[in-house]
Amino acid sequence: MDMKEKALMMHEQWKGKIEIQAKSKITNKDDLAIAYTPGVAEPCKKIAENKEDVYRYTIKGNTVAVISDGTAVLGLGDIGPEAAMPVMEGKAVLFKEFGGVNAIPICLDTKDTEEIIKTIQYLAPTFGGINLEDISAPRCFEIEERLKKDLDIPVFHDDQHGTAIVVLAGLINSLRLIKKDKRDMKVVINGAGSAGIAITKLLLQDGYENIYLCDREGLIYPTAPWANWAQQEMASQINPAGEQGTLSEVLIGADIFIGVSAPNIVTKEMIATMNQDPIVFAMANPIPEIMPDVAKEGGARIIGTGRSDFPNQVNNVLVFPGIFKGALEARARDITEEMKLAAAYAIADMIPEEELHEENILPRVFAEDVAEKVAEAVRKIAQKR
Amino acid sequence: MDMKEKALMMHEQWKGKIEIQAKSKITNKDDLAIAYTPGVAEPCKKIAENKEDVYRYTIKGNTVAVISDGTAVLGLGDIGPEAAMPVMEGKAVLFKEFGGVNAIPICLDTKDTEEIIKTIQYLAPTFGGINLEDISAPRCFEIEERLKKDLDIPVFHDDQHGTAIVVLAGLINSLRLIKKDKRDMKVVINGAGSAGIAITKLLLQDGYENIYLCDREGLIYPTAPWANWAQQEMASQINPAGEQGTLSEVLIGADIFIGVSAPNIVTKEMIATMNQDPIVFAMANPIPEIMPDVAKEGGARIIGTGRSDFPNQVNNVLVFPGIFKGALEARARDITEEMKLAAAYAIADMIPEEELHEENILPRVFAEDVAEKVAEAVRKIAQKR
Repeated sequence: MDMKEKALMMHEQWKGKIEIQAKSKITNKDDLAIAYTPGVAEPCKKIAENKEDVYRYTIKGNTVAVISDGTAVLGLGDIGPEAAMPVMEGKAVLFKEFGGVNAIPICLDTKDTEEIIKTIQYLAPTFGGINLEDISAPRCFEIEERLKKDLDIPVFHDDQHGTAIVVLAGLINSLRLIKKDKRDMKVVINGAGSAGIAITKLLLQDGYENIYLCDREGLIYPTAPWANWAQQEMASQINPAGEQGTLSEVLIGADIFIGVSAPNIVTKEMIATMNQDPIVFAMANPIPEIMPDVAKEGGARIIGTGRSDFPNQVNNVLVFPGIFKGALEARARDITEEMKLAAAYAIADMIPEEELHEENILPRVFAEDVAEKVAEAVRKIAQKR
Repeated sequence: MDMKEKALMMHEQWKGKIEIQAKSKITNKDDLAIAYTPGVAEPCKKIAENKEDVYRYTIKGNTVAVISDGTAVLGLGDIGPEAAMPVMEGKAVLFKEFGGVNAIPICLDTKDTEEIIKTIQYLAPTFGGINLEDISAPRCFEIEERLKKDLDIPVFHDDQHGTAIVVLAGLINSLRLIKKDKRDMKVVINGAGSAGIAITKLLLQDGYENIYLCDREGLIYPTAPWANWAQQEMASQINPAGEQGTLSEVLIGADIFIGVSAPNIVTKEMIATMNQDPIVFAMANPIPEIMPDVAKEGGARIIGTGRSDFPNQVNNVLVFPGIFKGALEARARDITEEMKLAAAYAIADMIPEEELHEENILPRVFAEDVAEKVAEAVRKIAQKR
């Protein structure tokens, strides 16, 4: 039986990959009187007096909602809220298994930006954080931005920032290895969806100065008629002169290629036109923009993909459990740019210099306490404020 | 340390009475590939093809949302969504411990009827059922009615129907014991909130013909200026002539008193004016409308309260875990009046005739398989349709 058949069979056996467990067992009248009526009235009254006590007496402080509208699920696209459930449940499993965080999958039966924002505002009292998931661009940008403003709990769109943070971590170690300076790097990012735009923003935050953002039609420029508002906004920052060109034209002389786009769109010839020691993160799933062996033939020095069956898996499982673990433990009201950068460096620093090599620029997903290291970095920033 | 202090201490230790557990452990790459990417894409695709498969591959089929806006919590009233959380978590514990049902507490930061309805509609894809909780009357009636119409999953306001069902179960056995016919009974219900009105409706469903519904101001009549629309609507059904009177006036010659109102508002003198062998369910919590010993002095033959420290605890924990267990197992699209009646008779039938006596008209909360008996009754009805 192949992996796909096994996945289907297991999902049917599980009938849901998570379940609710009672921490407070109810085996007699006294248990009932403590956990339910009349005893439960006491924490209720305390919280009614002081709202902050909700963190003291309820699940809120260690519980996040994993919320999607099912519009951009995996590579599958807009498959609807029901069909998105297995992914959100999987995410909830990873939150618990890696970060010890309770996560509740919630798939919404609306694609309306305003309705999604309002609904999440109404849900906020129950949760200590909101993990937005698989919401299509550019709506995801507005939804996240508005919620970050309105809510006093962390809001984090993992497809954007989880990916951006782990990409930055991989680049930090790649440049340590090949001894190049980020300020001199020509970076080409292909795929200007939620991930591509977030990677661009985070690299700018970290001090990269020379980033080219492309989409299907090529290099994005501020007035590109085929680009959405978020892409145009980004272009006016990194391509104010309005340069135009195809991906292969832009790749010439580039130091770094980051693909969050589509299978097999990069050839070894294109890699050959890059600067020396090129870094290639081809993260389209399951089939990368260029297969590692082909990239190698083209002269790539460091190659990362989204896949676990190749070296250097660039996977945001390294990020979100620890980011939320740290933010919740520090009761941070927001996940800031500073925290994202700190998380990236914490992940990079997990590879000791002597173990750093072309095929080992990122910790393995199952490496011990990745989440705790990331959480620690986030807590430190939170406590500084 | 008294019970209240202990309840507070335990809630602080628990920091939430429930937690998420992973059914699918993730200990290596293969686990990850099956439960998350790329394997998870398979159930997603199946559900995208056929929405009903969400019951086959996700938690939906055994998961309900316990939803409140925090406006009518216990005896505490409108304490807000955060302060309602301990109650909803307690409910989730009972759902799992008694019914094996996963329940997720959700407290909403809005009191607007339309917004609550819309929000729950948006949440519906994730859940197999909706348990409405502690939403103030009369809004709760409209919210439930609208959602029952709109959604294809069971919607059940426990404060109404859970209470009504367990009260009916208690009356069934009371009348079996004292050998009176329900059609001859004069029933006085005091407290015309969600519970009082639901009890009235269910007793009418079961064939009671002579019900008097009172609230603070006395007997409710169709044009009572102090009554809300739901109370007036109810009155026009059971009191079309528009009789008026105080509770003590109405109680004269009554066979059954049902209190879902306030502490100590019934005296033994009032009980003495009732018909012979009066049945008194005084369910105000924690202090009943009349204490059992006082009711006894007044001549009450069968006395029930909401409390676990007196005989005949009338507690809806006997109802909701089994009702949802049965509805979910049968994939019922609704919880019908017929199911509610069947549940009440199933609960009553758990007391064998030979064990039936004045202080044993209802099974104990911890009696074995109450939930399974109720679920069985619900499934039977669902399968008939």
